Amino acid sequence: MEPESLERRAVVLLSGGLDSTTCLAICKSEGFVPYAISFRYGQRHEVELQRAKRIATNAGVAKHAIVNLDLGGFGGSALTDRSLAVPKHQSADEIGSDIPITYVPARNTVFLAYALAWAEVLEANDMYVGVNALDYSGYPDCRPEYIDAFETVANLATKRAVSGSRLRIHAPLIHMTKAQIIRRGLDLGVDYSQTLSCYDPSAEGQPCERCDSCLLRMRGFAENGLTDPALQS
Amino acid sequence: MEPESLERRAVVLLSGGLDSTTCLAICKSEGFVPYAISFRYGQRHEVELQRAKRIATNAGVAKHAIVNLDLGGFGGSALTDRSLAVPKHQSADEIGSDIPITYVPARNTVFLAYALAWAEVLEANDMYVGVNALDYSGYPDCRPEYIDAFETVANLATKRAVSGSRLRIHAPLIHMTKAQIIRRGLDLGVDYSQTLSCYDPSAEGQPCERCDSCLLRMRGFAENGLTDPALQS
Repeated sequence: MEPESLERRAVVLLSGGLDSTTCLAICKSEGFVPYAISFRYGQRHEVELQRAKRIATNAGVAKHAIVNLDLGGFGGSALTDRSLAVPKHQSADEIGSDIPITYVPARNTVFLAYALAWAEVLEANDMYVGVNALDYSGYPDCRPEYIDAFETVANLATKRAVSGSRLRIHAPLIHMTKAQIIRRGLDLGVDYSQTLSCYDPSAEGQPCERCDSCLLRMRGFAENGLTDPALQS
Repeated sequence: MEPESLERRAVVLLSGGLDSTTCLAICKSEGFVPYAISFRYGQRHEVELQRAKRIATNAGVAKHAIVNLDLGGFGGSALTDRSLAVPKHQSADEIGSDIPITYVPARNTVFLAYALAWAEVLEANDMYVGVNALDYSGYPDCRPEYIDAFETVANLATKRAVSGSRLRIHAPLIHMTKAQIIRRGLDLGVDYSQTLSCYDPSAEGQPCERCDSCLLRMRGFAENGLTDPALQS
């Protein structure tokens, strides 16, 4: 076993959904010791965090940090008013530009800033984020140019980076379809029955099967000739 | 009086220290309606937040958000172990590369991410940050290239920005000496007796007069032929 100082550590953003869980599996498959980070930013997402904890434990992460995001002072409209209505559709083809219940302003910038902070403490050079430019094209902070720009910030932000270490933000899903993500995860042994992608799950974590996220995911499994195992559990 | 929708809103990072208080005054002088944001990340800084609140009130900010930063899950070393020893010197010439008590990993990236989130909620296009490249050259995230890189991130991160609004990060102090910052603030009517820059103040907010920050500040006043009014209050 290698001494701790030779570990290749990576910070992995983990929501407990399909994409981030696949991203965690890819991080491990690429030889990194994963440190998972999740965010608590609303009571309705407690079941999502429980899933993230279980997934992190099952994946054998070195540590799982759960950060309490305090955005309450910003006026509330973004997190409460906008979150009241979860758009429901009959099929994935109807999905438009609705703001989902999980809306957090400047979401990936806040998440990546915390990941960078933890990477600095861990002396990790690598971060993994499961953003995806194809299925969620409505989010500007899921595009490759955004990830590249944040990587530039990361490499200017810390003493460690400017003294020679090269920080890298890995976004392995960014150009993949949902069906391709699922195929890759299944090849890596991901148990998707544990993952929760729904914007409006029941208190027990049952997906609603009608929100954008549920529909995209069901279609991804269907394109692989499968049924979403989260619906059967 | 203009209707609220025509306000030129700006989010201003406010620690309650000399630099950020001057930055707030500059923001106002440039015609913006300031929204101040401060961060709570350690018990020892409660007196600093009290000063920030008083300064924000006196400056007539539209709102003052105080965000609770949760970094406890990152292992503690950065915020507790490293913070135990506050370096003390006899004069500003002795100041080296000590890590100050106020160390937060990836500090300005975390702060600016929250400022960007609030700017998105407020529909503000402008952010002010009192970073200074001359007196604090040990911090990579106080350099112009870092600020430029974060501005690029900000302009890629939100729907609002990609739909045509240009977000700007103002760092008006970045090339100024401490003496120049003080001169500018005095010209704008800043009451520096209220500001607290010390890394290790008493519970009542009396500066220690020996930490890096106290010494740089005292020298800045001396170069203006003045005594730091915080020492007399």
